[in-house]
Amino acid sequence: MALPLLQIALDNLTIEEAIKSAKKAQKYIDVIEVGTILLASEGKKAITELKKAFPDKIIVADGKIADAGKIFGKMFFDEGADFTTAICACEVPTIKDLVELASSYKTKRCKEIQVEMTSNFTWEQVDDWYDAGATQVVWHRARDAQASGVKWSQKDIDIVAKLAQKGFKVTVTGGVEVADIKLFKDIPIYIFIAGRSIRDAKDPELAAKEFKDEFKKYWK
Amino acid sequence: MALPLLQIALDNLTIEEAIKSAKKAQKYIDVIEVGTILLASEGKKAITELKKAFPDKIIVADGKIADAGKIFGKMFFDEGADFTTAICACEVPTIKDLVELASSYKTKRCKEIQVEMTSNFTWEQVDDWYDAGATQVVWHRARDAQASGVKWSQKDIDIVAKLAQKGFKVTVTGGVEVADIKLFKDIPIYIFIAGRSIRDAKDPELAAKEFKDEFKKYWK
Repeated sequence: MALPLLQIALDNLTIEEAIKSAKKAQKYIDVIEVGTILLASEGKKAITELKKAFPDKIIVADGKIADAGKIFGKMFFDEGADFTTAICACEVPTIKDLVELASSYKTKRCKEIQVEMTSNFTWEQVDDWYDAGATQVVWHRARDAQASGVKWSQKDIDIVAKLAQKGFKVTVTGGVEVADIKLFKDIPIYIFIAGRSIRDAKDPELAAKEFKDEFKKYWK
Repeated sequence: MALPLLQIALDNLTIEEAIKSAKKAQKYIDVIEVGTILLASEGKKAITELKKAFPDKIIVADGKIADAGKIFGKMFFDEGADFTTAICACEVPTIKDLVELASSYKTKRCKEIQVEMTSNFTWEQVDDWYDAGATQVVWHRARDAQASGVKWSQKDIDIVAKLAQKGFKVTVTGGVEVADIKLFKDIPIYIFIAGRSIRDAKDPELAAKEFKDEFKKYWK
């Protein structure tokens, strides 16, 4: 199994702070996420500026698109995003539109869609996304659920494994810590997202390296 | 039954265009929506500027919050939003956090949460939102579903009626035209949203007036 990639979620309130956070850990980061909070705070120019600051990294716009796929997709891709998220509540035509739009870009790195999932989904929807051409899903343990005491459970692991078996490239997110990585060891995880556990670390570069070292223990 | 309110959805790409669109129809508009597209394009300052331009109107930030309720809620309310939307895919703790946050504002006009619904929901979720203190829901026919040929159906009407019976203040949105209004005539609708049907009209003020005249035929 390929090594998972490490994504840093930049949920800062300003572009300046986001760039500063990512710079501190960039050596070990593969994917840079323009967080939903940053997007709401600063607008689409956050994508442009992060792409400019990190031209070699994969840039994800965490736009959680719920509708108007072509308008949002074009906005985010044109500003430099490689991947963009859609929220699982969206209707299937939105996924179809996003997939079609993504494939119309003839960039060196393929533009792709990630369907971001909460616990409110059905497997019928998952199959519909696949049939619509979606290649990636994000399994998301909600920040607010975490705060109310929800831990990673066997149910999370089982869902993630089933998503990977169905052929999706799976991203895992939601307060992921180094100690959580081994829970997913038998599953081909595409990306792990860490946000606060890197951004708020005393030594963000070391915190990122610890994730990568942990990946090497269980994959490859 | 009280007359429904009329909301204009400002899904423009710039604040300037949004203000221009709303000014043309403001006489008949009760609620101004900072659309998700505008928010993604310009960031939170779109809320500030629209509140400044229309201090007497109800301002809705259509942020479709999926997580981190307190962070987004605070951001949108502090910038001047009276209502903010959360997307139906979010977990219940996000709704709880938003309701608690909203009630902590001692503003003249109450801050409120609207849960924006797509077809991907369960009635169990709806009851959970109600129990969590949510007062408003938005029934949303997706733009991308519309474009793929989905019309208003008896199913929409039945869902909207059931939501109102459960005690929610219900907003109806998704390519609403004047001719669609009568479909909802026996239901206490709180708000109808019109976007393109007012913004793209030759005479936006007249287009808005036509909605209000239609409301008077079937409510009160």
